[in-house]
Amino acid sequence: MAEKIRVIVDAFGGDNAPLEVIKGAIRAVDELGVDITLVGDEEKVRKCAADNQLDISGVAIHHAPLVMAVETEPTKILKEYSESSMAVGLRMLHDGEGDAFVSAGSTGALTVGATFIVKRMKGIKRCAIGMVLPTTKEPCMVLDIGANSECRPDMLVQFAVMGSAYMNKLQGVENPRTALINIGAEPTKGRDQEVETYKLLGNAPVNFIGNIEAREIPLGGADVAVTDGFSGNLVLKTYEGMGKLISAYLKDMFGGVTGKIAGLFVLKRINAMRKKLDYSEYGGAPLLGAAKPVIKAHGSSNANAFFNAIRQAKLYIENNVITEIATALEEIKARSSEENNNG
Amino acid sequence: MAEKIRVIVDAFGGDNAPLEVIKGAIRAVDELGVDITLVGDEEKVRKCAADNQLDISGVAIHHAPLVMAVETEPTKILKEYSESSMAVGLRMLHDGEGDAFVSAGSTGALTVGATFIVKRMKGIKRCAIGMVLPTTKEPCMVLDIGANSECRPDMLVQFAVMGSAYMNKLQGVENPRTALINIGAEPTKGRDQEVETYKLLGNAPVNFIGNIEAREIPLGGADVAVTDGFSGNLVLKTYEGMGKLISAYLKDMFGGVTGKIAGLFVLKRINAMRKKLDYSEYGGAPLLGAAKPVIKAHGSSNANAFFNAIRQAKLYIENNVITEIATALEEIKARSSEENNNG
Repeated sequence: MAEKIRVIVDAFGGDNAPLEVIKGAIRAVDELGVDITLVGDEEKVRKCAADNQLDISGVAIHHAPLVMAVETEPTKILKEYSESSMAVGLRMLHDGEGDAFVSAGSTGALTVGATFIVKRMKGIKRCAIGMVLPTTKEPCMVLDIGANSECRPDMLVQFAVMGSAYMNKLQGVENPRTALINIGAEPTKGRDQEVETYKLLGNAPVNFIGNIEAREIPLGGADVAVTDGFSGNLVLKTYEGMGKLISAYLKDMFGGVTGKIAGLFVLKRINAMRKKLDYSEYGGAPLLGAAKPVIKAHGSSNANAFFNAIRQAKLYIENNVITEIATALEEIKARSSEENNNG
Repeated sequence: MAEKIRVIVDAFGGDNAPLEVIKGAIRAVDELGVDITLVGDEEKVRKCAADNQLDISGVAIHHAPLVMAVETEPTKILKEYSESSMAVGLRMLHDGEGDAFVSAGSTGALTVGATFIVKRMKGIKRCAIGMVLPTTKEPCMVLDIGANSECRPDMLVQFAVMGSAYMNKLQGVENPRTALINIGAEPTKGRDQEVETYKLLGNAPVNFIGNIEAREIPLGGADVAVTDGFSGNLVLKTYEGMGKLISAYLKDMFGGVTGKIAGLFVLKRINAMRKKLDYSEYGGAPLLGAAKPVIKAHGSSNANAFFNAIRQAKLYIENNVITEIATALEEIKARSSEENNNG
């Protein structure tokens, strides 16, 4: 029998911690056959479970007294908050006491923590957070969505390689169409960052399809859309906000008597649409480039979102995404040294 | 009797030129009581009108032989394409042969043309394109949405002042809530650009409410949302793409027999929602900072969008937006010289 996959989960990350984290963890143990260790204040976790009549006997708990709050300066995870649930969980991952780490806590702290505690893969300049977003066709991974506000072109090329490997291995996309997010299709469009990155991507081991305008992302124009963390965050947040705007409009549409009657006819479809637009169905966002699987769950994750993030961590391990990325990085290195030899 | 407002319209800008431009212009003459001059190849305009049985006797035509294509390098409007419909129209505006200019042509060329032919207002460092977007509450102006890929903080402050004046005078918003688009609420979030701009906006003559995440824009979190042209373009285009994604989902929802029955109950509401999400209802985007009113209509504008852009040009003039901006700029200057004297 194969050994069970062990997922370490930050019990005190996100707006709904620890209750929703506990619920998601219990469900994951039952349905996914994984081992879960919840990291955080043990007494609080046990009390929360008891207060809510939740049986946590199937879940391990590893005590960590502190919580890394969202507003805390990210670098403090390394010293003042080295006993926070996030820092302790990341150390456990580094030390091999688990195979993956899931947290809905501060993006900045998780990036710093993963970079300095778990470390980066060999050759990776920066970790990037990739988010899989719904489109009218197949989902698209946008990255970076917030780990690095400013990036150099060679970092963006690595993001493209990592996103491409992820979408191939985890989402089963054959030869993922990889695009650079820009304000126009022509290679000369955008800032210096885009012009330079465009040139480099042409020679990277990805299926580079050129620039993509943000408008084309929801319409399924690419499988992987690459940009810096500031720009990616704007795209992601606009996506989210528009999803909420639509929900508000739909509520209007199906309110009142006639609206409710209409709603009865298309209830299933409304729910399918809501589900499609609901980030919690897509699990968390991988911190690509970390030496081991680290998954950032959305700050407002509910039990379903935590469950999906854990499921994603499991797939990440089972599909050897990290090995895949390492192979692609070797290829970049080989190509560039070949060029240097020829040049 | 007051003199009629004279609007110059580029007959060869946008994907649907010249037919939709002509239609919008005819309607504007009828309904808005403005004088319109269409600029472009006269023979082609007359032929298009005749082919479509349109009576253009109420519209003036000013001949210009060339068209500034979207893919043409923007700076060429100054020399090789100085006889294009866009360049000729801008010169007419500069020379006082009209009170405002409307074009659905290349954003880049219009920015260069307005800057060098019409010139900027005194003290304005860069022109910015502002776009009024629908939200769950009142509409919000996002600027810059594409005139300047890279900006300095002092430029963003001017954008805030211009956007604020516009929303106040044209949309009747009392003391517009003006925000900086950023990846978090705290003053320390974002790139150097955001951190520095945040500080300056605190002392600018606008109602600065702090940083806004892109998610809050569709939810009505601000009346004016300021950023550089690269970032603003991403927000705008994601907005557009999500609007299309929703349209596709709605089509699915109200397809088939049950869907069609449901649709009958809420047809009015569906149409109201479509109208709310339809850019053409909001007219064009003003090129704020130009010495005279220049309106950029969307590249895929139809007759309705051209009509609304012309209506917007009329309001721009009637409400003295440019005078309002000039007054606010004087105030910035006074405040900063006061500070220097005190410092």
